[in-house]
Amino acid sequence: MAMLNKDTTLCISLSARPSNNGTRFHNFLYEELGLNWVYKAFAPTDLAQAIAGVRGLGIRGCAISMPYKEEVIALVDRMDASASAIDSVNTIVNDDGVLTAYNTDYAAIAQLIASHGIDPAASVLLRGSGGMAKATAAAFRDAGFRDVTIIARSQERGRALADLYDFAWIAEPGDSTADVLVNVTPIGMAGGIEEHALSFSEEAIAAARVVFDVVALPAETPLISAGRVAGKTVITGAEVATLQALEQFVLYTGIRPSDDQVSAAQDFMRAGQSA
Amino acid sequence: MAMLNKDTTLCISLSARPSNNGTRFHNFLYEELGLNWVYKAFAPTDLAQAIAGVRGLGIRGCAISMPYKEEVIALVDRMDASASAIDSVNTIVNDDGVLTAYNTDYAAIAQLIASHGIDPAASVLLRGSGGMAKATAAAFRDAGFRDVTIIARSQERGRALADLYDFAWIAEPGDSTADVLVNVTPIGMAGGIEEHALSFSEEAIAAARVVFDVVALPAETPLISAGRVAGKTVITGAEVATLQALEQFVLYTGIRPSDDQVSAAQDFMRAGQSA
Repeated sequence: MAMLNKDTTLCISLSARPSNNGTRFHNFLYEELGLNWVYKAFAPTDLAQAIAGVRGLGIRGCAISMPYKEEVIALVDRMDASASAIDSVNTIVNDDGVLTAYNTDYAAIAQLIASHGIDPAASVLLRGSGGMAKATAAAFRDAGFRDVTIIARSQERGRALADLYDFAWIAEPGDSTADVLVNVTPIGMAGGIEEHALSFSEEAIAAARVVFDVVALPAETPLISAGRVAGKTVITGAEVATLQALEQFVLYTGIRPSDDQVSAAQDFMRAGQSA
Repeated sequence: MAMLNKDTTLCISLSARPSNNGTRFHNFLYEELGLNWVYKAFAPTDLAQAIAGVRGLGIRGCAISMPYKEEVIALVDRMDASASAIDSVNTIVNDDGVLTAYNTDYAAIAQLIASHGIDPAASVLLRGSGGMAKATAAAFRDAGFRDVTIIARSQERGRALADLYDFAWIAEPGDSTADVLVNVTPIGMAGGIEEHALSFSEEAIAAARVVFDVVALPAETPLISAGRVAGKTVITGAEVATLQALEQFVLYTGIRPSDDQVSAAQDFMRAGQSA
């Protein structure tokens, strides 16, 4: 990477548990495209002060990850439809002090549902009720899926999400099965308390056709590994991460990299995960 | 420079007119010493929000340049004696959210007065009345200088500074002469409206023994060039910048680089000025 100078544009991410994904993806493309930009991940100590810093320091773009995707809504100036439709923000663009919020997770998940050719008639078990679960549920709904069950321990949050899209809600997976299993909880996330746990039982995996884990780190979560072993179609959080980061990159820079460049950036990002 | 990752520590500078000096100096030493740190210069749009960002993003260190050296006092938690004695801050250290303000300009100027062996009996004309002028005046006073005249168009600021140290004040240099000429205004600064102007007349330069310009960019200001041509002892803002940046580096990292490393960092910093 080139030495920073006073004109270098900064983009950042805010997350309670930063990964190196965004940092590697964006910085790789900045260098590849010869942009005097730099990307840095932060675990903010105070979200409002961090967003004040985005304004006060003239930071161009800011990725928002768990657990800030909803809390940040009160701190921005404008909501793009991608964020307002699901009350969840994962991207902020700073245009001369005016902060506009987007959700590129929604777009990424919608693209993956389409590119993997999942039949909208399929039944879906979707585990989770946070901001990312909202984006995922909205993408399935908008792709025509109707037989979707939200699984969330919190009745309040789980029911609210289910009601939003006319889906069902259950508190625990129990012995439920479906054609498509989707994990949108931190279960299986590296460094988490449930790092080695599975969101769905071996029986549910055996009965499914598609296993989709939105957890991006590691790329091979226990759920993804179990899905591969069982011969299922798997969709990884790393795919979501790449696609959503690409859309962020375009929003920040106004430049759409070539497919080869994106592929190289994705490889670079993944190499960092095994390091 | 190594690729940033999520654990990279950030230090920044806040200035209305950022230079590449701090960026090059600090980043060079981070790389030289194998530290996973990065330094970035900012021209803040709002100082209070920028300082909120220092807290909220956990930024470790923050250099403060013109015109924020006094305004920032209200925004920190603690004032080190180096800053409180002159009511001027050029450095903030963030210890887990507690912001302590320092002034490393004062220490740098005191070192340069001593290392150049300037006689405390010499008469001094000191032009300027901002935060950096305060640090400079305090360093001369504490080195034993008594025959010092502050030159500042603002009677209020000029008189206040002069009275603080029992110095004289005049509004314009006129045909004043002295043994030591010190410029602490933006006159001669690259990109400024008085970029090609001299703080002191050719006659005053001819009559002086020492010409000291605190403007660091360019290293060879019109005043320094004129001093060299006239065969005077010159002290440059680049020397001040190096010494004060070194003290900042030590405050931020707790590491004191070797003289060779500092010298190499200074060369690297200066190479950026001619670029």
